[in-house]
Amino acid sequence: MTDFFKGIPQIAYEGPSSSNEYAFRHYNPDEVVLGKRMEDHLRFAVAYWHSFAWPGGDPFGGQTFDRPWFGDSMALAKLKADVAFEMFDILGAPFYCFHDADARPEGATFAETLRNLEEIVDYLGEKQANHKTQLLWGTANMFSHKRWMSGAATNPDPDVYAYAAANVKANMDATFKLGGQNYVLWGGREGYETLLNTDLKAERAHAGRFLQQVVEYKHKIGFKGAILIEPKPQEPSKHQYDYDVATVYGFLKDFGLEKEVQVNIEQGHAILAGHSFEHEIALASALGIFGSIDMNRNDYQSGWDTDQFPNNHAEKALAFYEILRAGGYTTGGTNFDAKVRRQSLDAEDLILAHVGGMDTCARALKAAAAALEDGGLEAARADRYAGWQSPAAQAMLAGGLESAAARVTAEGLEPEPKSGRQERLENLWNRFV
Amino acid sequence: MTDFFKGIPQIAYEGPSSSNEYAFRHYNPDEVVLGKRMEDHLRFAVAYWHSFAWPGGDPFGGQTFDRPWFGDSMALAKLKADVAFEMFDILGAPFYCFHDADARPEGATFAETLRNLEEIVDYLGEKQANHKTQLLWGTANMFSHKRWMSGAATNPDPDVYAYAAANVKANMDATFKLGGQNYVLWGGREGYETLLNTDLKAERAHAGRFLQQVVEYKHKIGFKGAILIEPKPQEPSKHQYDYDVATVYGFLKDFGLEKEVQVNIEQGHAILAGHSFEHEIALASALGIFGSIDMNRNDYQSGWDTDQFPNNHAEKALAFYEILRAGGYTTGGTNFDAKVRRQSLDAEDLILAHVGGMDTCARALKAAAAALEDGGLEAARADRYAGWQSPAAQAMLAGGLESAAARVTAEGLEPEPKSGRQERLENLWNRFV
Amino acid sequence: MTDFFKGIPQIAYEGPSSSNEYAFRHYNPDEVVLGKRMEDHLRFAVAYWHSFAWPGGDPFGGQTFDRPWFGDSMALAKLKADVAFEMFDILGAPFYCFHDADARPEGATFAETLRNLEEIVDYLGEKQANHKTQLLWGTANMFSHKRWMSGAATNPDPDVYAYAAANVKANMDATFKLGGQNYVLWGGREGYETLLNTDLKAERAHAGRFLQQVVEYKHKIGFKGAILIEPKPQEPSKHQYDYDVATVYGFLKDFGLEKEVQVNIEQGHAILAGHSFEHEIALASALGIFGSIDMNRNDYQSGWDTDQFPNNHAEKALAFYEILRAGGYTTGGTNFDAKVRRQSLDAEDLILAHVGGMDTCARALKAAAAALEDGGLEAARADRYAGWQSPAAQAMLAGGLESAAARVTAEGLEPEPKSGRQERLENLWNRFV
Amino acid sequence: MTDFFKGIPQIAYEGPSSSNEYAFRHYNPDEVVLGKRMEDHLRFAVAYWHSFAWPGGDPFGGQTFDRPWFGDSMALAKLKADVAFEMFDILGAPFYCFHDADARPEGATFAETLRNLEEIVDYLGEKQANHKTQLLWGTANMFSHKRWMSGAATNPDPDVYAYAAANVKANMDATFKLGGQNYVLWGGREGYETLLNTDLKAERAHAGRFLQQVVEYKHKIGFKGAILIEPKPQEPSKHQYDYDVATVYGFLKDFGLEKEVQVNIEQGHAILAGHSFEHEIALASALGIFGSIDMNRNDYQSGWDTDQFPNNHAEKALAFYEILRAGGYTTGGTNFDAKVRRQSLDAEDLILAHVGGMDTCARALKAAAAALEDGGLEAARADRYAGWQSPAAQAMLAGGLESAAARVTAEGLEPEPKSGRQERLENLWNRFV
Repeated sequence: MTDFFKGIPQIAYEGPSSSNEYAFRHYNPDEVVLGKRMEDHLRFAVAYWHSFAWPGGDPFGGQTFDRPWFGDSMALAKLKADVAFEMFDILGAPFYCFHDADARPEGATFAETLRNLEEIVDYLGEKQANHKTQLLWGTANMFSHKRWMSGAATNPDPDVYAYAAANVKANMDATFKLGGQNYVLWGGREGYETLLNTDLKAERAHAGRFLQQVVEYKHKIGFKGAILIEPKPQEPSKHQYDYDVATVYGFLKDFGLEKEVQVNIEQGHAILAGHSFEHEIALASALGIFGSIDMNRNDYQSGWDTDQFPNNHAEKALAFYEILRAGGYTTGGTNFDAKVRRQSLDAEDLILAHVGGMDTCARALKAAAAALEDGGLEAARADRYAGWQSPAAQAMLAGGLESAAARVTAEGLEPEPKSGRQERLENLWNRFV
Repeated sequence: MTDFFKGIPQIAYEGPSSSNEYAFRHYNPDEVVLGKRMEDHLRFAVAYWHSFAWPGGDPFGGQTFDRPWFGDSMALAKLKADVAFEMFDILGAPFYCFHDADARPEGATFAETLRNLEEIVDYLGEKQANHKTQLLWGTANMFSHKRWMSGAATNPDPDVYAYAAANVKANMDATFKLGGQNYVLWGGREGYETLLNTDLKAERAHAGRFLQQVVEYKHKIGFKGAILIEPKPQEPSKHQYDYDVATVYGFLKDFGLEKEVQVNIEQGHAILAGHSFEHEIALASALGIFGSIDMNRNDYQSGWDTDQFPNNHAEKALAFYEILRAGGYTTGGTNFDAKVRRQSLDAEDLILAHVGGMDTCARALKAAAAALEDGGLEAARADRYAGWQSPAAQAMLAGGLESAAARVTAEGLEPEPKSGRQERLENLWNRFV
Repeated sequence: MTDFFKGIPQIAYEGPSSSNEYAFRHYNPDEVVLGKRMEDHLRFAVAYWHSFAWPGGDPFGGQTFDRPWFGDSMALAKLKADVAFEMFDILGAPFYCFHDADARPEGATFAETLRNLEEIVDYLGEKQANHKTQLLWGTANMFSHKRWMSGAATNPDPDVYAYAAANVKANMDATFKLGGQNYVLWGGREGYETLLNTDLKAERAHAGRFLQQVVEYKHKIGFKGAILIEPKPQEPSKHQYDYDVATVYGFLKDFGLEKEVQVNIEQGHAILAGHSFEHEIALASALGIFGSIDMNRNDYQSGWDTDQFPNNHAEKALAFYEILRAGGYTTGGTNFDAKVRRQSLDAEDLILAHVGGMDTCARALKAAAAALEDGGLEAARADRYAGWQSPAAQAMLAGGLESAAARVTAEGLEPEPKSGRQERLENLWNRFV
Repeated sequence: MTDFFKGIPQIAYEGPSSSNEYAFRHYNPDEVVLGKRMEDHLRFAVAYWHSFAWPGGDPFGGQTFDRPWFGDSMALAKLKADVAFEMFDILGAPFYCFHDADARPEGATFAETLRNLEEIVDYLGEKQANHKTQLLWGTANMFSHKRWMSGAATNPDPDVYAYAAANVKANMDATFKLGGQNYVLWGGREGYETLLNTDLKAERAHAGRFLQQVVEYKHKIGFKGAILIEPKPQEPSKHQYDYDVATVYGFLKDFGLEKEVQVNIEQGHAILAGHSFEHEIALASALGIFGSIDMNRNDYQSGWDTDQFPNNHAEKALAFYEILRAGGYTTGGTNFDAKVRRQSLDAEDLILAHVGGMDTCARALKAAAAALEDGGLEAARADRYAGWQSPAAQAMLAGGLESAAARVTAEGLEPEPKSGRQERLENLWNRFV
C-alpha cells in the first residue's frame, strides 16, 4: 500500500440521510433497479488520465498538483498504477479506462515506447487479477505529442498515418490482452485549423480507411469488444471531423461501418456541439450506434471542455432515461472523463469528486427507472403517435406523394392541432426526479 | 407600373469609384471572370418572402412596414407580384425564389388555397415571360400556419403528413410549371421542442420516407431541377433534424438519397450550427451534395437567425473560393434570403440592401477567382499532401493496419512535424481580397 | 365565472407522494421555512402578458392559441381580466404583473389609450379588492408598437422620448393606484441595431436622465415601491444598454441612482449575457441592488429567450440560496415571466405549467434553506477567507502598495496553495438538494 | 546577431501590387493619414509572451516549437531578448510589451526572481537604447504560477495579496525604468471557479483597494503612463471580475478610479463577452476610459481565446473607425497579443504573421480614415439625432417626467417612425473598405 490515500476509508453505501463525506448516499451497488443490480446498470469507470496523469495545468497556468508518481520512469509508472488501483478499491469501481500515454513513459524510439507499454500492460494485468476493477476500454493518445499536431490518420504526412496505425494496433493489442470491453477512438487532432491548408476530402477518406483497418484488425485478432468513436465538434482543432453523433453516423455509413462501430458520447462534447446530452443518446439509440458514455459535464457558460464531475442529478436523469429506453449498456459503461478542478489539490478531492459523481448518477438512474416503471411518459408518447399505427397511415408511407396528397381533398382533411403537453410531461417527469 | 419604387432608377454598373448609391460598383454582369460572365457565376436570386411578405415584426414587436399590397386578396397578391418584378427589373436580378404562402392568399379550404396558388402561378408565369427574371427555386411554407406547429412530414398526426404531401406536390407542380431550376425543402418544424413527447426514430423515418416520395414524384413528372434540403440546427424548433450538412448527408445515405438530393446552404444557419460558411460549402462539395446558397449573414453576437444582407466581402470571398473550387453552381444560385432591418422602412432600403449585397458578392467572387487563378494556395495545398501520391502511401491505405504499423519499426519512422504555414497562407489570401 | 378553466380545481398542497396533476407536491404556502411562511418567501407572481396576451406566435409562425378574449375591445379586455383572476385564484398566486399593453386595447390616440388604461386599471382594482392576488409590479410596454422601433428614451427623435415619458408616467400612476410594490423598466429597444447609425453616448445620456426623471416622479407622487431595471444583453436589439447586472450598476453609479434603483433579474437574460442565474443574484446582492426575480429559464442550447417555466429544482436551488443569503425579497418576488410552449394549446397547460413552476421553486427554496440551516457551506466559506480577519491583513488593505509588497521579503512569504475543495462543497450542497 | 532569423530581410513597404512575402503591401510608416504618420496612428507593439515564451502547447498537447532560448537561465533570457529585438528590427515595430515572467527566469525565492527581473530589465534597457523599439507597456504575470491559482489580489489568502503587491510594484518599477507608456493589469485569475467557495463581495473589495494602491503608487513614483485594465469575461476562470468594458466602468466608479484608469480592449475578449470589438471601443470612448488595444482575433466558432493575428481588414476597419472617432491613441497602441498557430513552427511564420497583421491594420486604418474624411456617415448620424439640438428637447431633459409627458397631449404628438437606413449606411461604409 502507498500512503497517498492514507486515512481514507473504503466508501460504503449509508443511505440518503448519511452525513458522512466518505459514504455513498445513493449508490448502492447491489440494489436492484428494473431487475438489475445498480452496479451492472451503471458500470462506472475511472479515467486514468484526469485523475493520475494530469498535472493541473490549463492554458494560462502550469502544474498545481504534487503527485509522488509524476515523472518519466517505469518505476513511477508502476507507482501510479498502484495508487490508481488503491483509488479504484476505495471507490469500489468496477472499471477503469486509459490511454497508453497515461500509463507508460514515452520512450526514445517507438520500439522503446512499445516495450514500455507492454511492461505496464503486464503490470496492469496483474493488478486486475488481484482487484475487482477491470478495463472498460483502452485508447491511444494521438493528440499530445507534437508528431500528431496536424492529425494522426488525417495527417498530411503518410508516415504519421503509419505511426497512428502502429499506435492503435499496440493499444488494441493491449486492450485485448487486458480483457477490455471496448476500444475507443477520439480524434482530437483529426480535424483542421484552417481550410486554407486542408484537403478536407482526402483527410476524410484517410480517416474512413483507417477506421476500416481498425475494424478489420479487430476481427483478425478476435477482439469481441466494441469499437467506439467519441464525437466532439472542436477543441483543440477548429473543426473536428467526428463533430457529433449525426456526423459520425454519416461517416460510418459512407465507409460501410455503421454495424461495426458505435459511439462513446460525452456530455461536454454534446454541449459544445449545440446538443443536449440526452439528445445525443436518443439519436445514437435511434440510429443503432449507442455504445457508451463519458459522464462529465461542461459549464454551460464556458465554451471549452471543462470536464467537471456531474453534480446535478435532475439533469443527468434525462440522460439515464434515454439510456434505459435504449436498453441500457451492453459493453459500454459510465466513464468519468472528469477532472477535479485545478485548485482541488488534495488526495481527498480525488476521492470525493468520484463519490459525488457516482451518487449523482445513481440518483439519476433511480429517478429515470422510476419514471420508466411508472409508464406515464411512455404511454403519453405512444398515444401522441397512435395515428401512425393505422393501416391507412402505413399505406400512405408505402405509397407515393400523390396518393398521400390526394387524401387531403378526398377526405377533406383539415388537421386540428393538439396540445403537445410539454409542461404537463415535465411535471410528470419531476414526480420521479 | 406601380409607383412603389417611383424615382428609383435601374441599377447599372459604374465601377468602384462611383459614389452613386444607385449603381453597382463591383457587380458587372457581363464581365468575364474565369471564363464565365459574372451573372452566370453568381446567379443572384431575390427572396419573395423577406422583401414582399414580411411585415417587419420580431418576437417583441409587430408590423413596421407599410406596403400597399399587404392583405389577403388575390388582387393584392397580384399587386405584390407587380412590385416584385419591378424590383427584379431595377436590380437586373436573373432569378427569384418563393414559398406558396408568400405569393398567394390562404384559402378557407385546401382546395381554395390550391386554386389561389394556381392563379398566382399563372400570373407569375406571365411575369416571367415578360421579364428577364426567372425562378431559381420554389418551396412550400410548412411552418407558419398552426397546422404545422408540431411538424409537417414529422407530425405525430398522419393527416398532417398527408397535408404536407399535398402542399409539396402543389409547390413542385408550380415550380415545374414556372421552369424553376430547383425545389427546396426547409424543415423548420421538422424537429422537436422536447424529447419527452417525441418519437425521434419514428419522426426521422417519416421524414426519410417523405423525401423519397418527393424524389419519386420529381422523376414521375419529369422535373429536371435539383431537390435541395436546407440545413438549420434549430429555431424555431429546439432541434431540427436537418442540423447541418454532415447531418443531412447521414440522413440521405440512410434513405438512399445521396445521389438524388443536394443541400442549399445558408450562412446564418451554418453559424448557428457552429460552422463557418465556407466549411459547410467545402464539406458539401467533398460529399458530392453541394447545390445552392442562401446568402444572408447572421450577426456573430446573436444566437438567432438575423438574416442580414452580406456586407463583408473579405469574409464572403472564403465562401466563393469554396464554391469555385467545387466547380461553381450548376442549377444552384446565390439567393438573398435576407431581410432589411425592421427599421429600414423605405422602398429605397429594399433596393439598396440588394445593391449592397450584390456588390459584396461580386467583389468576393472576383477576389476568390483571382486567388484561384494565381494558383499559389492550391499549389501549397497540393504540396502539403504530396506524400500521399506515392505508391507506398497508396499501398498502405489499401493494406491492413498491421502492415501500416509494421512500417514504423521496419523503416524507423519518426515523422518530423512541418509547419502548417497558416499565417503565410492567410497573407497570400489577402493579396487577392 | 367564465368557463375557460371549467373543471379545473383549485390547486392545493398534497405532498410529494401525490400523483394528482392538479395539486402542489412541494409548494405549501403556510409551511414555515427559516421562520417565514413559504408564500412570504416566494412571493409568486403570474405574468399577464405570456399567459393572457401572447397568441402563440414565433418568428416563423403565427397564432396557435384560441382564446375567447383575443381582440381589441374593452369588453374583451375585461373578459381577459376575469379569466386572469380565475387563474390566479386556482393557483392561489399572491401576485401578478402586467404591462399596459397586455391589459388594455390600444386607442386611436394617446388620450384614448390612456383612458382605456384608466378604465382597465379601475377594473383590475376591483378585482384585487375581491381577490387575494395583488400587484407585484407594473410596467410600460415600450417595445411592441412601431413607434418604439428605434428606442423609447433612447430614440433619436425627442418626441418619442416625450411619448415614453407619458407612457411611464401613466403606468407609474396605474401601479401606484393598484398598490403595486415595484415598478419595472425593461428596455428591449433601448439599444442599437448598428453602431453606424447610433450616437451611443447621447443615447446613454438620455437613458440616464430619463431614469432620474422616473425616480424624481416616484418621490413626487409618494410611490413607496422599488424602481427596478431588468437587464438583458440583446434581443430584440443587437445590443441592449442594460446588458447585465454589472453594466446596470455602472450606469446607476454614473447617474447617481445606485441607491434608488434595483434590478429585476431574469434567468434567461442572465444566460444570454453569459452568466449563471445565481451569479447575477450574488453580484446584485454584493452591489446592494438586488430587487426581484423573473423566474423563467432559457434552453441552454438556444441563443434566444425561450421563457420556459423552471423545471429543474436542483439548478434553481442555487438561485434561491443566493436570494436567501441576500436576505430574501423585500418588495420583490418570483415572477413567472414564462410562457407555455406554442404547442401547449389547452387551458390545462396554462395551469399545469404554473403548478410545475411553483413546485420547482418551492422545492428549490426548501433545499436552499436546508443548506443554509446546516451551515456547513457558510462555515467553509468563512474559513477560506479567515486570514482577512487579522489586523495585519486589514492594515495591508489600509496601507499602500509598497508596504504590502515589503511583507514578501520581510516575512519571507511564499504562500502555499490550499485546495479550493470545490467537489467537496458540491457534494455537501447535494446533501440538501 | 543570432542566426534565428537568418536570411529574412528587413520588411519594407512595397505597395499593394507587391508579391513579395517579406514586404508590407499596406503599412507605410511615413505615409500621412488624417494629418498623422501611419506609424504614429497605429503604434504597433509586439507581444513578448506569445512570440518568444509560448512553447506551442494547448490543453491537449505539449510543446511544438523548438527555440534555442527555451530554458530557465539568465543567459537564455538574454538570448531571447536578442532574438526579440532582431524581430522588432525586421518588422520596424515601434513598441513591444512584456510580462515579467516572459522575460526573466523564475528564481528560487522572490528576492532572486526580483534580481533576475532587474537584470533583464537592464538588458532590455540597453536594447532599447540601441534600437528603435520602445516599451508600450509592462505587466505582471499573476496567473501562471500555482501560487496564483485562486487569484492574486482576490486570493482568499492575504499573503498572496501581498505577493501580488510585490509583483506589481516590481513590474511598475521596471516599466517606469524602461520608459513604458502604460502599465496593464489583466486579472485572469481574479474571478472564481464556483460561487460555493467564493466571497464575491470581499474579493471585489480587495480588487478595488488593490487598484487604488496601484494608482497611488503610480503617482508616488511619478510614472506618467496610463494604468490600464484589460477586460475579459472568463477563461481561465469561470467568471472574471473585469468582464467587459461596462463592468470595469462600474468597478472604477465604485472605487473612485474612473479618471485614473483606462481599458486595454482585446477583440478576442470582446467576442467572448458577447460584444463586437467596435462596441467595446465605442463604449469605452463614450465613458472616457478608452486606452489601448490588443489586436488579436478570436475564431467566431471557438468559445475560447484563440489569439489569432487579424486578417480581415474589412472587419478591423470598424474598430479603427471607432478609434479614430475617439481621437486615436494617446499613450495606447495596437499590441499584437496574438500567437502563430501551434503548427506554425518556423521562424518565418513568426515574421509573416506580424507582417500580415500589420498590413491588415494599416489597410483597416486607411479605410476608416477615408470614411471619416468623406464625412457622409457622420453627417447621417448627426442628422438622425438633430432633433435633440432644439431648445425644447434640451428643456425636456432638464425638466421632469410630467412636463415631458404633458407634451404628448398638449402637442398631439404621434411620432412617425423614420427609416434607420442601416443597409444604406453599410453600403456607404463599403465604399471605403
